[in-house]
Amino acid sequence: MTIPGGDKRVTLADVAKLAGVSKQTVSRVVNGSAHVTEDTRERVLHCIETLGFRPSALARQLSTGRSQTIGVVSNGGQGYLVTGVAYLGMVRQADRMGYALLIKEMVDFSAGSVRAMLDFLIERQVDGVIWAGPEIGDSHAWLDDFDLASLPMPLVAINAKARPGVDTVSFDNFEAGRLATRHLLSLGRRNIGHISGPANRWVTQQRVEGWRAALAEAGLPEAGRNLVEGDWDVTSGGPGLRRLREICPQLDAVFVGSDRMAIGVLAEAHRLGLRVPEDIAVMGVDNQPESAFLIPPLTSMTQDTPRMAEVALRLLVRRICERRGEPYPEACAIPESPVLYHDLVVRASTLCSKSPTR
Amino acid sequence: MTIPGGDKRVTLADVAKLAGVSKQTVSRVVNGSAHVTEDTRERVLHCIETLGFRPSALARQLSTGRSQTIGVVSNGGQGYLVTGVAYLGMVRQADRMGYALLIKEMVDFSAGSVRAMLDFLIERQVDGVIWAGPEIGDSHAWLDDFDLASLPMPLVAINAKARPGVDTVSFDNFEAGRLATRHLLSLGRRNIGHISGPANRWVTQQRVEGWRAALAEAGLPEAGRNLVEGDWDVTSGGPGLRRLREICPQLDAVFVGSDRMAIGVLAEAHRLGLRVPEDIAVMGVDNQPESAFLIPPLTSMTQDTPRMAEVALRLLVRRICERRGEPYPEACAIPESPVLYHDLVVRASTLCSKSPTR
Repeated sequence: MTIPGGDKRVTLADVAKLAGVSKQTVSRVVNGSAHVTEDTRERVLHCIETLGFRPSALARQLSTGRSQTIGVVSNGGQGYLVTGVAYLGMVRQADRMGYALLIKEMVDFSAGSVRAMLDFLIERQVDGVIWAGPEIGDSHAWLDDFDLASLPMPLVAINAKARPGVDTVSFDNFEAGRLATRHLLSLGRRNIGHISGPANRWVTQQRVEGWRAALAEAGLPEAGRNLVEGDWDVTSGGPGLRRLREICPQLDAVFVGSDRMAIGVLAEAHRLGLRVPEDIAVMGVDNQPESAFLIPPLTSMTQDTPRMAEVALRLLVRRICERRGEPYPEACAIPESPVLYHDLVVRASTLCSKSPTR
Repeated sequence: MTIPGGDKRVTLADVAKLAGVSKQTVSRVVNGSAHVTEDTRERVLHCIETLGFRPSALARQLSTGRSQTIGVVSNGGQGYLVTGVAYLGMVRQADRMGYALLIKEMVDFSAGSVRAMLDFLIERQVDGVIWAGPEIGDSHAWLDDFDLASLPMPLVAINAKARPGVDTVSFDNFEAGRLATRHLLSLGRRNIGHISGPANRWVTQQRVEGWRAALAEAGLPEAGRNLVEGDWDVTSGGPGLRRLREICPQLDAVFVGSDRMAIGVLAEAHRLGLRVPEDIAVMGVDNQPESAFLIPPLTSMTQDTPRMAEVALRLLVRRICERRGEPYPEACAIPESPVLYHDLVVRASTLCSKSPTR
């Protein structure tokens, strides 16, 4: 099998030298410009073939202003992208639409870093940007005032608070918290605790509000005290359960902010001799493939992150086309700032209800 | 907070027009070429400032031949990258070294696709390539004959068979299979089955060989029949265990090719009323963070994929520097084709041994 081979990066200059013309002339030929005589064009094309010159995608990009590249700003350990499946959804969708992804990791979210990141992406002439870092504290505050129209390319933010003039694609995490809590209430549980993600996350805050809203609706606002902060990770599940039982000795259900933490909760309940769900109902968020195979199988909420990534990419391509005044592909007819919802998946970790107390 | 703003992609041509010079002259100024008079230089610099022209990274790249970008060819659903943590290791290392990653998904591995992928990366003038698609069937056969030196950039393959003239960074999966099996043998188990990954994977084949080698060393070559093919996924664990017990009714241990499949095995054992490890010892590969919290906690083997990704990136940067005749950073002093090893982590799913049968 033979593959490219042979060409030790032949440059425009090499072609120009052999053809006895300027680099600009070679560039004109490559880009199909009209301002070249037929003789010259033929001579240049002959030299291009002789040398095996590969007209650079970058050279073309310089003249067309299109890179067919989408910049993705993610935040390693913390972001949605690193769940792998979301990343995968984005890579596949980009591939289908003929784009490559240029991935940059964002380590801090200070104003200077945001500026540097945008500068980097502008310099690389990406056609559009997916802002996939999580909304932590005021990390996305710059989006409130920033005039996105002044950027040379469109930007779509993933799982960020809706803001005027900003394209976002997000889950409704308030609704997720409410849905989870209503499910536990429907089983007759009254002392429902919550092990949340990190408190400074917008996603976490939304879920806490949804959990409290459902408790208030059920006339149990005081149960809103039963809150422990976790870190999404399996290791924070067990300590979270122990702390919740200190705060609320009658604890009979836990809404856990991630399936990973819920695995830690199940292990700790097992260690403490608590029966799940008889003594304590446990549910997570994410519905990881493994969750159906835990002991007991875990009630959870599907969060279709690959779909979120796909939708974000389609919306971005729509915006790219719109800026260029071109029609966009049918698949890109995504509405403004679409909101995605979690789906409840009920399994044995909550299914067997205690006799309702009311 | 104000960020870039204002510049609707000012081009070289805009600057040239305002300064009354050719684009080539502007380009010379931007790239610090000597062939410009001081007067012209000052006029051009003034116009660059007036217009807010941002000398494009791509323009600079065209003249320097350096993109500070590394192409990563991954294979979505199947590759090591999508485990997220490996991807993360690579993104972080790239970030530390000042490179961005250009990610391309490879859907099939036919000769034509490989060529198209390499062409794509050459056109984008990436400084180097990480070939991170898994070795499936003969997907990497092109590496056997291909003259990598003819590529305009160096290439490092991740978790691929060692080949002369090819830089690879891989785990020793033969050793992993042998290590796992020796552990189960050391507990007195004799009827040791294996639920493997997909049979056409090089990684799978290596582990199967290691498992069989350990069985043969222990005088149990006939146990090498107790093999069922899985697909890495949790859903194939349960059916795998049932099939193994049909093949070998005395089955007393299972070496499972991934922790995810092992979760399915634990669930099925629980359903069948088999005690783990008393009736059947179970161990996985990967040592996912959750595995310590399963019921019972799962014996596994740590496969440090972030480290593999980091090492691959460092080796690649070494090669990039070497090709340019430049010294490479100390961190890049990676030996030729380094091999990484799994670490055994023993937990309760194998720990309590049956009374040895010999």
